[in-house]
Amino acid sequence: MTFYTELSEEELEKLRKDLKRKFRDYQQKDLHLDMSRGKPSQSQLDISMDMMDVLNSDSDLACEDGTDCRNYGVLGGIYEAKELLASLTEVTADDIIIYGNSSLNVMYDMISRSMTHGVMGNTPWCKLEKVKFLCPVPGYDRHFTITEYFGIEMIPIPMREDGPDMDMVEELAGGDELVKGIWCVPKYSNPQGITYSDQVVRRFAKLKPAAKDFRIYWDNAYCVHHFDFENPDILLEILHECKKAGNPDMVYKFCSTSKISFPGSGVAALATSPNNQVDIKKQLAVQTIGHDKVNQLRHVRFYMDKNGILDHMKKHAAIMKPKFDIVIHTLEQELSGLGIGSWINPKGGYFISFDAMPGCAKRIVKLMKKAGVVMTPAGATYPYGKDPKDSNIRIAPSFPPEEELQLAAEIFAVCVKLASVEKILEDRKKNQAS
Amino acid sequence: MTFYTELSEEELEKLRKDLKRKFRDYQQKDLHLDMSRGKPSQSQLDISMDMMDVLNSDSDLACEDGTDCRNYGVLGGIYEAKELLASLTEVTADDIIIYGNSSLNVMYDMISRSMTHGVMGNTPWCKLEKVKFLCPVPGYDRHFTITEYFGIEMIPIPMREDGPDMDMVEELAGGDELVKGIWCVPKYSNPQGITYSDQVVRRFAKLKPAAKDFRIYWDNAYCVHHFDFENPDILLEILHECKKAGNPDMVYKFCSTSKISFPGSGVAALATSPNNQVDIKKQLAVQTIGHDKVNQLRHVRFYMDKNGILDHMKKHAAIMKPKFDIVIHTLEQELSGLGIGSWINPKGGYFISFDAMPGCAKRIVKLMKKAGVVMTPAGATYPYGKDPKDSNIRIAPSFPPEEELQLAAEIFAVCVKLASVEKILEDRKKNQAS
Repeated sequence: MTFYTELSEEELEKLRKDLKRKFRDYQQKDLHLDMSRGKPSQSQLDISMDMMDVLNSDSDLACEDGTDCRNYGVLGGIYEAKELLASLTEVTADDIIIYGNSSLNVMYDMISRSMTHGVMGNTPWCKLEKVKFLCPVPGYDRHFTITEYFGIEMIPIPMREDGPDMDMVEELAGGDELVKGIWCVPKYSNPQGITYSDQVVRRFAKLKPAAKDFRIYWDNAYCVHHFDFENPDILLEILHECKKAGNPDMVYKFCSTSKISFPGSGVAALATSPNNQVDIKKQLAVQTIGHDKVNQLRHVRFYMDKNGILDHMKKHAAIMKPKFDIVIHTLEQELSGLGIGSWINPKGGYFISFDAMPGCAKRIVKLMKKAGVVMTPAGATYPYGKDPKDSNIRIAPSFPPEEELQLAAEIFAVCVKLASVEKILEDRKKNQAS
Repeated sequence: MTFYTELSEEELEKLRKDLKRKFRDYQQKDLHLDMSRGKPSQSQLDISMDMMDVLNSDSDLACEDGTDCRNYGVLGGIYEAKELLASLTEVTADDIIIYGNSSLNVMYDMISRSMTHGVMGNTPWCKLEKVKFLCPVPGYDRHFTITEYFGIEMIPIPMREDGPDMDMVEELAGGDELVKGIWCVPKYSNPQGITYSDQVVRRFAKLKPAAKDFRIYWDNAYCVHHFDFENPDILLEILHECKKAGNPDMVYKFCSTSKISFPGSGVAALATSPNNQVDIKKQLAVQTIGHDKVNQLRHVRFYMDKNGILDHMKKHAAIMKPKFDIVIHTLEQELSGLGIGSWINPKGGYFISFDAMPGCAKRIVKLMKKAGVVMTPAGATYPYGKDPKDSNIRIAPSFPPEEELQLAAEIFAVCVKLASVEKILEDRKKNQAS
């Protein structure tokens, strides 16, 4: 293998011709593949279908304390749902507020409430001249969209192998009262699949933010979404660490069953300190009489406990792991040693993060689209959709069936090669001209 | 019958003694009855239990356009759910955005978004010095709680026999740019059970508000909640009227299945103009990937269409009507002709509004509590919980079983009498002293 950058112009031109031919062959297949979002596949949805039988017209829809789940009330969720979601995210039932079907909605509501009413008695953010958020990059586009929507200035924090650059986090959070939060996907991160190390979690817990209302937005979306249950990534529990470090109120931890049962019809939860809960429930009581308790009960009676969830997640893994293997294997086979891209092989989660040669990501995604494969837009993993290097691409292998995914991965490799060759040739031309 | 105010002091003192004795007899029964909220009774919940069988593990959970309802997506709700809720609230499917389980949450979100982002390009309310809302009184406490939570100044508008005092509404909305909205429960209103007349609806539609971002918050909570299906109240459709009057964007109309299927596990919807929908969906797309489509599908397959809903509502009415009859009958029998209270006999909805002698409502509710019957707090039907006359009491007959309700109604009559006698005696004493 030779690095593309070491090839002669002649070799590159020949390569471009070959790649263009291959690309056109794919184009002629008239494909319509989608690798854009972290959507479970149909076979993953099928493994939860028995949940539809858990409650029927003969069921007693009372929960353990006798509350009729069919009627109004129970603002923070039924206790057994708190227990289930608590076990999922490694806290206790008392740490939990149960919400509706979407943890994204919970995060939105947290920011929205902070804007209009502030956090635990602090000035509402809408009364401040400016609010800033730290955004580990590459990161989750929907997080960035929320903060952008509220006009919050986003500061990118580079991701390291074991989590965000904590020197930067400590400096920025510690030195600037306008920095009010940080978005984190601490386990099998979106899109890199990185799990924060113990050291990173402990440094988070020990933060000394300048702002009293600084909160860590800890989106534990992939808490049990391992591929290898014998050897999963382990993440330190942040609520516990924050409490130990004397920062009990510093974290909002989010989780949901979206990628466990049915996305969009699951149960979402927030885990946080008693002080934060009091603060949040003041608003929650105005916003709703209570979330869907029948669905909470359905989830509890289906999964029973954490073991039930883990058994279920093994079924998901049996579908997901081969898909990730296809993509990783194809990347290794087609792109290793060419110096035109790097990637991380995750042990769980929903994404593979690919870093192309700088200046190539948009072109690759555009080529993919022309070949009939929809990818997450290049740049989406950065605040404001702007990847300064135009390098990062999020690959979402979950949705397409395996045979389609194999094809999509091969096309991806061709598009990466083609875009890289084009870029190298273009750069050389520029250098010659200057 | 003699008006209490016409009795001599001696007669009143004797009456007080008798009433106190009766009251103490009730107290000794150690009752625990609840007439505080508009909660359906257990037998009402039972009539929806077949909904639990509609979807099972063999069901095809695809909706009509082929979308898999188990997966992410479909921001505004599945089309057949839009059709169902549209028929419920007499608009077309294209007028509808489907939300989660709670229309209260939708209303909260509308106000919250108006605070942070404004309405259709107008200045966000949080940037204004002051925002005002018109509040027909007596009205729904949870509406008032939302506007109070956001620091919006509430202006009470007296209710007439056929809706709010429209002279006042026209004057205040037309003359003050800070007036941004009005809360309405236009059919079987909470708490009076009044349905707005055609004339009132047309005057609403023809409003010329000073503020471009003035919106009518039309909470059509009781759209099909009739007691007599042969002779229901008819409410003019406000979206249509607003369009005709050249005010297509002036109304947000809310509805839900909360008191049709299961409260807290139903489906909520907003009906509004295309312009408003575009405005709202900008936010909705940031807030969530989509609401619970499986539950939407469950409702569609259970009710099928409006006729299915109406048939279902007749079962509710068969349970509700006798309860309302018990309360109305007891009020008539015990309190008619005494000059110590008035009430309206509603043709649908969830409440009976009782107006006691001024200065008696709090005392009556307190007496009820001492006798073991929880009522909605006196004053709750007014902004800030302050009924200037301390007169209005909301009676919620739906939850207790009939025999308990009969007892509660009798106790209520005794408490009204007792509080009234006390008040009259007290007033006379004051007059003598001065």
